[in-house]
Amino acid sequence: MSAEPAKSEKIVTAAVIIIGNEILSGRTQDTNLAYIAKGLNEVGVALREARVIPDIAETIIATVNELRARFDYVFTTGGIGPTHDDITAESMARAFGVKLVLQPEVHRMFLSYYKQGELNEARLKMAHAPEGATLIHNPVSRAPGFQIGNVFVMAGIPLVMQGMFDSIKHQLKGGPPVLSRTVSCGLPEGLLAQGLGEIQNRYQDLDIGSYPFQRRNEFGVALVLRGRDASRLGAAASEVAELVRALGGTPVEE
Amino acid sequence: MSAEPAKSEKIVTAAVIIIGNEILSGRTQDTNLAYIAKGLNEVGVALREARVIPDIAETIIATVNELRARFDYVFTTGGIGPTHDDITAESMARAFGVKLVLQPEVHRMFLSYYKQGELNEARLKMAHAPEGATLIHNPVSRAPGFQIGNVFVMAGIPLVMQGMFDSIKHQLKGGPPVLSRTVSCGLPEGLLAQGLGEIQNRYQDLDIGSYPFQRRNEFGVALVLRGRDASRLGAAASEVAELVRALGGTPVEE
Repeated sequence: MSAEPAKSEKIVTAAVIIIGNEILSGRTQDTNLAYIAKGLNEVGVALREARVIPDIAETIIATVNELRARFDYVFTTGGIGPTHDDITAESMARAFGVKLVLQPEVHRMFLSYYKQGELNEARLKMAHAPEGATLIHNPVSRAPGFQIGNVFVMAGIPLVMQGMFDSIKHQLKGGPPVLSRTVSCGLPEGLLAQGLGEIQNRYQDLDIGSYPFQRRNEFGVALVLRGRDASRLGAAASEVAELVRALGGTPVEE
Repeated sequence: MSAEPAKSEKIVTAAVIIIGNEILSGRTQDTNLAYIAKGLNEVGVALREARVIPDIAETIIATVNELRARFDYVFTTGGIGPTHDDITAESMARAFGVKLVLQPEVHRMFLSYYKQGELNEARLKMAHAPEGATLIHNPVSRAPGFQIGNVFVMAGIPLVMQGMFDSIKHQLKGGPPVLSRTVSCGLPEGLLAQGLGEIQNRYQDLDIGSYPFQRRNEFGVALVLRGRDASRLGAAASEVAELVRALGGTPVEE
């Protein structure tokens, strides 16, 4: 099930590619995916898939070429710094079959920022982007990301990634925002399942999920409804609350 | 670059599939990937890729069939509960072309746990697994995971997933554990990049990553070396520390 607008409306889709050995080694806990996902909800873009891949050029190239053909937008994070393991920009150029070229605007900014002798080859690498790319502003630490075709290439450091994503988010052409309602209760999922499935069947334009939780010593379940039509969401949320009450629980709208 | 053993040793590889709309909507921050990744390091299995996919049967089937052919092990999380959106077990049966069958051992356990009338159809669903699967013990909440072929199917709730993963981790046949050393310092990456790249070139059996961080108001970079040979790691870590000192920084081994 997924939260779909009426059939006549095209759903705008996206994928995220998280590039970095540090995520696959478990050293770094990714938080960029959730940030991008929430932002895409706001602008009505449906995130359909995410991949976490290592810093290997062939893997980056194959993954971006597969996903940019399948989805309207692709967002990548990671691998655009100055060190030897930062190979995302070069790999994007190869994926698009273009050259990596010095960006005069970034070059000028770097020349005015770095002191004499500090702008070495490694730093100059960050002033390069694939030919034809549009730069994405970095409000935190200067070195920009870039957009090429339908692919947005951003930094891996969360604060920098967030600044970059926020600066391009409202350029994305999505549908109506994806709204959500959450009804929580202390009943077990196994008791709710049948009635919840029946509500999902009646509201096929909504996506209804059931997520058990434990807070302190209290067990419960969050029933989350997502969709683009506030009145349909409201009607379904009322039915879910009614189901909870009918089974002896106390629905709490979060 | 990746941390490889000597050429004669086969690298045992793995992929993770995180199944759940709640991750792609940004509602839930995944933590299972990092947990599995760290566990795989301990048993010498190289995690090569992770995917986050929605609760859509065709997507689950296509993804598991692609990845189980490409990697030695596949681990999935999510979608094995009692509600309508829990379609992982059924999708795995379809991916392997087998039936979903009642597991007598789980059925008996459920019969003795649930009171008369409580073991409804939704709960009984959790006593099913694909034909030929081996059950994975759930030390937290009864309903088991399962292994079929090289695919390990686990719950999405982190505490449950962790219990399941811990119970199968030592059955995995990996290589020597992946070790790591971290040298941190307050120097900028752009200053370290050239020397670090040279060290990486001399230690191609190691994976050297450079990860900038900000702690309170202090900026710095963690230089992380990963590999399977402790003495090679030690030698490379010493060279990295020496590089930091040569550039005027203070290396801190973490």
